Amino acid sequence: MTKFDEATQAIRVDESTYDVCLDPGYSIGGPLNGGYLMAVILRAVVDASPHEHPVSTTTQFLRSPRPGPAKVVVEQVKAGRTAAFTRARLVQDDVAQLEALVTTATLTAVEPLYAEEPGVAMPAVDECVRLPDPRPESGMTLNAQMEMRFDPPTIGWLNGAPTGRPEARAYFRMAEPQDPDPYVLALAVDALPPVVFSAGLRGWAPTVDLTWHLRALPAPGWLTLLGGGRLIADGWFDEEVEVWDSAGRLVAQSRQLARVGRG
Amino acid sequence: MTKFDEATQAIRVDESTYDVCLDPGYSIGGPLNGGYLMAVILRAVVDASPHEHPVSTTTQFLRSPRPGPAKVVVEQVKAGRTAAFTRARLVQDDVAQLEALVTTATLTAVEPLYAEEPGVAMPAVDECVRLPDPRPESGMTLNAQMEMRFDPPTIGWLNGAPTGRPEARAYFRMAEPQDPDPYVLALAVDALPPVVFSAGLRGWAPTVDLTWHLRALPAPGWLTLLGGGRLIADGWFDEEVEVWDSAGRLVAQSRQLARVGRG
Repeated sequence: MTKFDEATQAIRVDESTYDVCLDPGYSIGGPLNGGYLMAVILRAVVDASPHEHPVSTTTQFLRSPRPGPAKVVVEQVKAGRTAAFTRARLVQDDVAQLEALVTTATLTAVEPLYAEEPGVAMPAVDECVRLPDPRPESGMTLNAQMEMRFDPPTIGWLNGAPTGRPEARAYFRMAEPQDPDPYVLALAVDALPPVVFSAGLRGWAPTVDLTWHLRALPAPGWLTLLGGGRLIADGWFDEEVEVWDSAGRLVAQSRQLARVGRG
Repeated sequence: MTKFDEATQAIRVDESTYDVCLDPGYSIGGPLNGGYLMAVILRAVVDASPHEHPVSTTTQFLRSPRPGPAKVVVEQVKAGRTAAFTRARLVQDDVAQLEALVTTATLTAVEPLYAEEPGVAMPAVDECVRLPDPRPESGMTLNAQMEMRFDPPTIGWLNGAPTGRPEARAYFRMAEPQDPDPYVLALAVDALPPVVFSAGLRGWAPTVDLTWHLRALPAPGWLTLLGGGRLIADGWFDEEVEVWDSAGRLVAQSRQLARVGRG
């Protein structure tokens, strides 16, 4: 069991309740990373479902739970032959922190009938760059769990040269060797820096809700995260992330609605 | 009050229950259109919310309700200053038909900080074409509620000439003159023929879940619907629709996960 598997473990208490322990190692400077929290919820949902794979997950980020004990409460809405529908809540001190709707199904590895190519070509991994390690006092413990290599222009904002468009692209894998699975993908779809940084904005950019779809089971190796956005207006922005696996297949698609940083 | 406003009306019974009457005029050959059903749910959600606009809606399509009386049951998950989070269910004969999570907020008409252009150029409205009226025995009553003008190549499948890619593009407005609003947009994001028809597939293509985001309040006039998809695999496909208003602004973004037709 990897550290990530352990940090996302959900222990069944009864048919609707799972005990979890939120790990301080997934902090983004105070709050825990949303992708990590989705992975925790999905462990419980999949355990309670007749199906194996979370093909669609929508999460509303109501509050920021702190590290430590929490519960996932699942409610089976409908369990069908092709898909099951589950409502899940992450609860801490009897207060709902995240609210989710998850559709589970069982994917098999078949050749696609139709597959588009990535919209953007990435440089090779060794032409991409790491971000500097965060200062310990930043409380950014998440970074140590993941290895990322960024497409250089998309982190130009770090040196005062944003591209002027919402975008972020990187190769991604877990720091502790682990083949990607749906839980790693839940982390991956929310792992990039906010795409608005590249548009010249800064500050805390909280996710309000995020929907992601699992499209295929990922092959071992680096994942490629392609992030963009269409509109920044009225204090809101969208962030779309596609995740491609090392075999060149689209494995996840996400869109989140987030608030423009006030920091 | 237009026919659409009337068909989507939700009458408050108590703080968590709304009576609705599902209109047979929104049938797609038996089942009622998913966008119509979302609009009905959103009437109740917005009435119960301190905010005016459904900025994010995720709906799971559990069952197909029939025309006639039903209820929308709303549960306020959290009502904050910037956004409110609501769970809503459409219930008929005490059985949940659709399950939804909705985020409401209050949008104002401000100039965007950043806005991308549409990815595809549409021909002018008068170079686009109508679909032939459905045969009365098809039970496709939905078509009479909307006016649509299709980008010709994207309905080539009607004459045995699919483009080979999942796509559908059309201008859209209500048949009874009505300025577009968020409820009309709920209908619009699910109004195109399944994008997989253009990839050469046929048959019933049921939506399993759909998430859409309201990004701005639409200007009066034609809406432009740009639909596409990235992957058809394992019996599943994604359908993305962007809705642009007559002022050239992105007003809605949706993604649905649906099943490949078995018909």
